[in-house]
Amino acid sequence: MNRLFIRSQLQRFLEEDVGRGDITTEAVCGEETVKARVVAKEKGILAGLPFVQELFLMLGDVCVRPKVGEGSEFKEGDVLIELEGRADVILTAERLTLNMLQSLSGIATKTREFVRALEGTKVKLLDTRKTTPGYRFFEKYAVRIGGGSNHRFALYDMVLIKDNHKRVAGSLEEAVRRVKEKVGPAYKIEVEVESLEELEKALDLSVDIVMLDNFTPEEVKEAVKIAKGKVEIEVSGKVTLENIREYATEGVDYISSGSVIYASSWIDLSLRVL
Amino acid sequence: MNRLFIRSQLQRFLEEDVGRGDITTEAVCGEETVKARVVAKEKGILAGLPFVQELFLMLGDVCVRPKVGEGSEFKEGDVLIELEGRADVILTAERLTLNMLQSLSGIATKTREFVRALEGTKVKLLDTRKTTPGYRFFEKYAVRIGGGSNHRFALYDMVLIKDNHKRVAGSLEEAVRRVKEKVGPAYKIEVEVESLEELEKALDLSVDIVMLDNFTPEEVKEAVKIAKGKVEIEVSGKVTLENIREYATEGVDYISSGSVIYASSWIDLSLRVL
Amino acid sequence: MNRLFIRSQLQRFLEEDVGRGDITTEAVCGEETVKARVVAKEKGILAGLPFVQELFLMLGDVCVRPKVGEGSEFKEGDVLIELEGRADVILTAERLTLNMLQSLSGIATKTREFVRALEGTKVKLLDTRKTTPGYRFFEKYAVRIGGGSNHRFALYDMVLIKDNHKRVAGSLEEAVRRVKEKVGPAYKIEVEVESLEELEKALDLSVDIVMLDNFTPEEVKEAVKIAKGKVEIEVSGKVTLENIREYATEGVDYISSGSVIYASSWIDLSLRVL
Amino acid sequence: MNRLFIRSQLQRFLEEDVGRGDITTEAVCGEETVKARVVAKEKGILAGLPFVQELFLMLGDVCVRPKVGEGSEFKEGDVLIELEGRADVILTAERLTLNMLQSLSGIATKTREFVRALEGTKVKLLDTRKTTPGYRFFEKYAVRIGGGSNHRFALYDMVLIKDNHKRVAGSLEEAVRRVKEKVGPAYKIEVEVESLEELEKALDLSVDIVMLDNFTPEEVKEAVKIAKGKVEIEVSGKVTLENIREYATEGVDYISSGSVIYASSWIDLSLRVL
Amino acid sequence: MNRLFIRSQLQRFLEEDVGRGDITTEAVCGEETVKARVVAKEKGILAGLPFVQELFLMLGDVCVRPKVGEGSEFKEGDVLIELEGRADVILTAERLTLNMLQSLSGIATKTREFVRALEGTKVKLLDTRKTTPGYRFFEKYAVRIGGGSNHRFALYDMVLIKDNHKRVAGSLEEAVRRVKEKVGPAYKIEVEVESLEELEKALDLSVDIVMLDNFTPEEVKEAVKIAKGKVEIEVSGKVTLENIREYATEGVDYISSGSVIYASSWIDLSLRVL
Amino acid sequence: MNRLFIRSQLQRFLEEDVGRGDITTEAVCGEETVKARVVAKEKGILAGLPFVQELFLMLGDVCVRPKVGEGSEFKEGDVLIELEGRADVILTAERLTLNMLQSLSGIATKTREFVRALEGTKVKLLDTRKTTPGYRFFEKYAVRIGGGSNHRFALYDMVLIKDNHKRVAGSLEEAVRRVKEKVGPAYKIEVEVESLEELEKALDLSVDIVMLDNFTPEEVKEAVKIAKGKVEIEVSGKVTLENIREYATEGVDYISSGSVIYASSWIDLSLRVL
Repeated sequence: MNRLFIRSQLQRFLEEDVGRGDITTEAVCGEETVKARVVAKEKGILAGLPFVQELFLMLGDVCVRPKVGEGSEFKEGDVLIELEGRADVILTAERLTLNMLQSLSGIATKTREFVRALEGTKVKLLDTRKTTPGYRFFEKYAVRIGGGSNHRFALYDMVLIKDNHKRVAGSLEEAVRRVKEKVGPAYKIEVEVESLEELEKALDLSVDIVMLDNFTPEEVKEAVKIAKGKVEIEVSGKVTLENIREYATEGVDYISSGSVIYASSWIDLSLRVL
Repeated sequence: MNRLFIRSQLQRFLEEDVGRGDITTEAVCGEETVKARVVAKEKGILAGLPFVQELFLMLGDVCVRPKVGEGSEFKEGDVLIELEGRADVILTAERLTLNMLQSLSGIATKTREFVRALEGTKVKLLDTRKTTPGYRFFEKYAVRIGGGSNHRFALYDMVLIKDNHKRVAGSLEEAVRRVKEKVGPAYKIEVEVESLEELEKALDLSVDIVMLDNFTPEEVKEAVKIAKGKVEIEVSGKVTLENIREYATEGVDYISSGSVIYASSWIDLSLRVL
Repeated sequence: MNRLFIRSQLQRFLEEDVGRGDITTEAVCGEETVKARVVAKEKGILAGLPFVQELFLMLGDVCVRPKVGEGSEFKEGDVLIELEGRADVILTAERLTLNMLQSLSGIATKTREFVRALEGTKVKLLDTRKTTPGYRFFEKYAVRIGGGSNHRFALYDMVLIKDNHKRVAGSLEEAVRRVKEKVGPAYKIEVEVESLEELEKALDLSVDIVMLDNFTPEEVKEAVKIAKGKVEIEVSGKVTLENIREYATEGVDYISSGSVIYASSWIDLSLRVL
Repeated sequence: MNRLFIRSQLQRFLEEDVGRGDITTEAVCGEETVKARVVAKEKGILAGLPFVQELFLMLGDVCVRPKVGEGSEFKEGDVLIELEGRADVILTAERLTLNMLQSLSGIATKTREFVRALEGTKVKLLDTRKTTPGYRFFEKYAVRIGGGSNHRFALYDMVLIKDNHKRVAGSLEEAVRRVKEKVGPAYKIEVEVESLEELEKALDLSVDIVMLDNFTPEEVKEAVKIAKGKVEIEVSGKVTLENIREYATEGVDYISSGSVIYASSWIDLSLRVL
Repeated sequence: MNRLFIRSQLQRFLEEDVGRGDITTEAVCGEETVKARVVAKEKGILAGLPFVQELFLMLGDVCVRPKVGEGSEFKEGDVLIELEGRADVILTAERLTLNMLQSLSGIATKTREFVRALEGTKVKLLDTRKTTPGYRFFEKYAVRIGGGSNHRFALYDMVLIKDNHKRVAGSLEEAVRRVKEKVGPAYKIEVEVESLEELEKALDLSVDIVMLDNFTPEEVKEAVKIAKGKVEIEVSGKVTLENIREYATEGVDYISSGSVIYASSWIDLSLRVL
Repeated sequence: MNRLFIRSQLQRFLEEDVGRGDITTEAVCGEETVKARVVAKEKGILAGLPFVQELFLMLGDVCVRPKVGEGSEFKEGDVLIELEGRADVILTAERLTLNMLQSLSGIATKTREFVRALEGTKVKLLDTRKTTPGYRFFEKYAVRIGGGSNHRFALYDMVLIKDNHKRVAGSLEEAVRRVKEKVGPAYKIEVEVESLEELEKALDLSVDIVMLDNFTPEEVKEAVKIAKGKVEIEVSGKVTLENIREYATEGVDYISSGSVIYASSWIDLSLRVL
C-alpha cells in the first residue's frame, strides 16, 4: 500500500475528530505516560492494524505492540494491541483507533463467513462499489483481510456495462461496440446480463466477464452450461450467507456481495488505560 | 448547513469513485438526455436529498425533482426522486447518489424507530462519535432527520471526561479541576460515571451533564433520585430497541446510542433509466 | 494541541512567505552553520515558542534553545531564543519566526494587562471572534498564554443569539425556542441582551450565559441583582483597561474584549546571526 | 487580482469561522430575506469591498450594494454597504465580512495618513514583510488602497541582502557577488546598509536599490549626497508619522514602514439587520 | 471526462503561472473588451480545446469560439479559436492556453503520424507511463485525440510484470503466481518477456497480454507464430516512425511507444489581440 | 530550495502514478531488499538528483548513492545512481524517478549546448514561460543546472509588457505609464519591441530591460548601437543552436529561448535491479 496515500487519509480522519485540538485531554493530561490495551468484547477477525500503527507513527510518542496478527481470529476478552507512551496521544487517538478497528474487523469477520461458506469450491467472493463515501479504500482492504477479493475500485479502472448503459446505448451489442472503439486494452470489460437470452448475446461479444444479475440458482446452472467456459462468470444480487452455496455452482468464477461491507456489523472493542 | 463545506466533501467522494473519469459511461454515452427514477425497494425514512441536489448542481445538466420529502416515510415501490438530463452525468453519479441515500436513509430509519420507542417520554435520543471515519457530518445529519439529536461532533467542541481521563488524572475530582482551570466557558462539561457512588461525587463538581455508563434500568432509577434534577442525566451503553423504554425513566434527559449509526442497515434503493 | 493541525498551518505560512524558495538566501548561503539569537527590543510576555520549535523541526537542521519560558515576562535586551544550525534555514525562517513571536507576544502582553486589572476579582477575561482571518487559532492561543480564557472558537461550537438573530426571529423568546428545538445538548446557549428588561425575559428562558451588551457599570450592577446568580453573566462592549475594574462587579462571571487581539501591538524583537 | 486565488483564500476563512455550519443561524433562520447595512462607527478609508462582494457571490442569495467606493473616506454614521437577501447567509458571513473590512480599512486609513504626510515630496511609501501570517495578500492590498506601494511580496520575488546575509557571506561585496552569479536578471537586487561607509561600498556594486537602515534624518541627507542619484534610495526603520517628513529628503525614493500594517487599528464598523 | 477533476487541474496550473495576480495585466488593463485569435504558425492536429473552454468558463467574461474541431488537421495561418471578452482575462490566460494547446497538439500530431503508418493493419498504437510528472492525464488524452489508445494510466489500474519484478520474485512463473493469488479479477495481467523462450513460458501462465520487449521485427514474427493467438501481443521498445510498419506483423495487437508523448514537438501557435 | 514545497510537488506526482497503491509490486514483493542502478543509455548532463533523493527520503527504506554529480556530464553506460533497500519501494518509485531524471537531464543537456555556443561572449542564456503546465519549477531548475539563467517564473514576479498589452493600452508609452503608476518598486519592467523605431521610444521610458522580438542578427546589431548601453538588451525569437552565435553581438545581455525546455529530448536512462 502507498504509505503517503494512507497518511493523507488518516490526517483527514484526525481533522474530522480532533481538529484544532482535544480540549478534554489537553486540559486533563500533562506529560504522563501510560500503558493501555485494546481488548475484544466479542469474537471476530482483526483488520485495521497497519492503519493504527501508521496513525501512532504520525502522532509520535506511543509504541504499538500488536498481540494478535492482522487477519487472525480473536475471541472475547483477548488483548489485541498493547499501547505504551504519552497518555494524551493515546486518549486523543482512542476513538479513531476504535472506529477503524471496529468497522474494518466487522467487514473482515463477515467476509470470512462468506468465504468459509464457499470452501471446497473454486468460487471467489468479491465486493462491490456499495461502500461508505470516502472510506472505500479501507473497506475494500478489510474484504481482502477477510479472504475475499476486490471487484473494481472505481469507475476509472474497469469497464462494467450495466442495465442503464444498455438502455442509453439502445442494446448490449451497441454498448459493447462503443466501448471497444474507445477504451484501450488496459481495462477488462464486464457486462451485466439479466436473462439467459442476453447471456447468449454477450457470449458473442468477446468480453472478459459476464455478470448474471439476480438469477436464481437454477438459472445460474443453466447459464454455466450455455457459457461453456468461454467467459468468466460472476453471480450477483440476492446472495446471502444462507443461499450462497447454492449459487456456487461448478463453472461460476465469482460471487459478488456488497453486503460484506454495507451490511457488516461493528465488532465490539474497547481501549482501556491500565 | 455550510454549502461550501458540503461541496468540498462531495468533491472528495467524487474523486474516490470517479477520479479522472468513468470510462464506461464516457464510451457508451454521447449527449443523450434521459429520465431516470430513484425507486424504493423497501420501506424507510428518506435522508440525504439535499446532498443529492447539491451533487447534481455541481455536475450540472441534470434536473432533480424530489417526489418524497426529506425525513418522510416511504414504502416499497415508491418513486423517491425523478431525474431528467444528461445520461452521462446521471450514470456517473448513480452509485454515489445511491450510496448516500441508502446509508443515510438507513440511519434515519433506525433512529426513527428508537425515537418512536421514546414517544410519550421527555427523553431525547442522542448519537455518539462512533461513526465511519470521514463520513461523520453526513451520519449525524441523518440522525437529526430521523428525529434524534446530536451529541458533540468532535473532540474540540465539548468536554467529556471519560474513564480513561479519570485514570490519568488520578480521580474524577482532579480531572474536573484541571478542566475548569484550563477550559474557557464556551464548552459544556460532561462526566461519565460508573457507579452511584461516583455519581454522588460528580454532583458536587458542578458539571453540566452526567453520563451513566452501563447502568441497569434499576440503577438508572436510583441515579435519578440521587441527582434530584441538579444536573442533566444521560444514559449510555447496553441500550437496544427492546430495552430503551425501560431506561427512559422520568428524570433521564438523554439516552445515547451509537448503534443508530454504526449498526444501521442500508435501505435498498435503485436508480433506473426509463 | 493537535500537532498535525499546527504543521498544516505552518506549511501554509511558509508557502506564503517562501513559496518555491528564498532567492537571496539560496544564492548567498552554502552549507554554513551559525548561531543566532532572538532578542527583545522592548519588554513583554513571550508567546509563540511552541510554533517556532515546530517550524524548525519541520525545516530541519536547526536546534532551538529557548532562554525564556512561554508565558514569562522578559525585558528589553533579553535573549529569548538561541538558534544553532544551518544558516540558510535560519535566514529563510527568520521573518515568519518573528512575525509569529511579535504578534502573539503582543496579544499575550496586552491580555496580561487586562488580567492584572482584574486581579482580586472572580471575573475571567474572555476574547471574541474579532480576529485576523486565517490566524484565529494562534491569536486565541496567545490569549490563553496571557492569562485570559477563550470564548467560542467559531460558529459551530456554541450558540450565541445576537441582536440580528432576534430581529430575524421576531423576538428573543422565539429565537431561543427555535434553538432549543433544533440544537442538541452538546452546546451552551448564550443570549445577548441590550437592556434590563430584556435580561428579565432572558432569565425565564433557561439559557447558560447572558451577555450584557454595551451596559454602563451601573447597569451591570443592577443586572447582577436581577439575575440573582440564576445564569452566568458576561459583560461585553466599551470595556477598556481604564474602566474594566468598574465593570468587574461581584456577580459578573466574564468580561469579553476583542481588543486584546485586534488592538494589541506587536512586541519589537530581532533575530541576529552572531 | 486572480479571482480564483481570492476565492480559495475566502474559502479558507469561512472554513475557520463557519466550518460545518453556523449552529445558531441554522436554528434561528428559515428562508427569511432581510435588508442589512454595514455602518461606520468612526471615520476612515474603506478597504476590502471586492472581497466582501466575492464572498457573497460564493455564498449566493445576497445582493451587495456598496454606498461608499473602495478607497474613499467615510465618516461616523455613514452607511458603507447595503445588503439584501437571505438572512441566514448574511448572519453567517457577518463576522468575516466585518473582520476583513475593519482590519483592511484600518490599514488603508493608517497608510493614507503616512501618504498625506509625504504630500509635496517625490517619496513613495512602502510596506514590508512584517505582516500577519496567512493574511499578507489582503494586508498589502489595503496598503495600495491607502495610497502606498508594495515592497516585495515574499522571499521569491526580489533579492534583499540584509545584515544577516552579509554576516554569513563575510562581506557585502561577497554577498552581492554570489547573488549576481546565481540569480537571473528577472529580479531586482537591494542591499541594506548600516553606515555611510557601507553605502559607499554598495554604490560600487551596481545594485538596484540601497536601503538605509536606521539612519537619522541627517545621515539620510548625507547619504543622498554621496549616492548622487546612482541608485534608488529607500529609508527604513524608526520612521513614524511624526518624523516621516524629516526623512523625506529630496533624493530619497522610498520610505518603508511595516507599521502601516502591523500597528494599524481596526476601524469600528457594525452590521445591522433592519 | 470528469469536469470537476479537470477544473482542479486547471486551478493548479493557474496557481503556477498567475498565483496572486498578473501584475502587468492588472496595471495595463481596465475593463476593456477585445477580440483575439489563436493562430497556427505551422500545421498540425488540434488537441486541448475542451480544456481551453473550461479554463475560460472558470475565469469568466470571455467567449470562446472554436474555428477548427478537436482532432482536426490545420495548416499554417489557420485561425483555430476566436476569443471575445475582457482583455485582462485573455491576457492573463494567454500563456497557459498556448502551453496546453501547443504541447497537446504536438502529441496528437505525432501520434497521428504513427497511427497513419499503421493504416491497413489491425495493430493499435499505445502510449506508456513515460509522461511529464503531473501532466499525464492531459498527455494521454492527446494520444487518444491523435488516434492512439491508452495503455494503463497508473500503477493501480493494471498489472504489468516487468523485468525487475521477475528478478525480485525469482522467476516469471513465481511473479505471476503471486499476482494471481493476491490481485482480484478486475485487473488485466500483462507480462514483459525478453526472449522467445520466455514467451513460451508466459503462454502457459494464462495472462491477458504479453509484451515483447526490444524484439527485432523478425523475432516478433517468430513470436506471433509461437503465440498462435492464445494471448494478446504487445510490441515495445526501439519502435520509430521508420520501422513501425516492420513491427506491425499480422498477429501483433498493439505497438506501444512512449515517444509519441515524450519526444513530441510543440506546435507553434500564437494568440493575437486584434 | 524550499524542501517542503518540493515534497508537496513530489507527493502530487506520486498521487498521479501510484495513487492508492502499485498493485503489481504489492503482489510480487514481500520484504526483500535489493540493489539497483540507474544507468545511462546515452550521454548527457545529469539533472534531478536532489528530487530523487528527496523522493526516497519520503518513501523511506532505500539508500540513494549518487555516482555522478548533479550537473556533471555522463556517457553511455555510466552508472548514475546506486540504490539499495526495499525492493517494493524501488519498483514503485522507478517510473517517477526515471521520468524526472530523463526529462530534466534532457533540458540540462540541451541548455548546456546553447550555453557552450555562447562561450567567449558576455551573453547569458535565459528560458521563458513556455513550460509544461504544473512542471515549471522543475524545468526551470534544470535550465540552471545546464548553465542557463531563469527569466521570470510567473506573471506575479516581474513586469513584461508584450505586444498584446500595447494594443490594449493603445501605445507602448501608455502601457508603461500605467505600470509605473500602479506597480511598486520591487519588480523590474521589461518591454518587448518589434522594430528599431519602437526601441527608440522605449529608451525614453526608463525601463529595465528591452526585449528585441524576432529581430534579425543585423537588426540586433543596429539596436545595440541605438541603445548605447542605456538599458539591458534581451534577444528573443527565432534563435536556434545554429544561429545563436550570430545573435550574440557585443552589447546584447541576454538571449532567451523557450526551446531549451519545450523542445528538449529525454535522455535515455534505465533502472535495473541487480
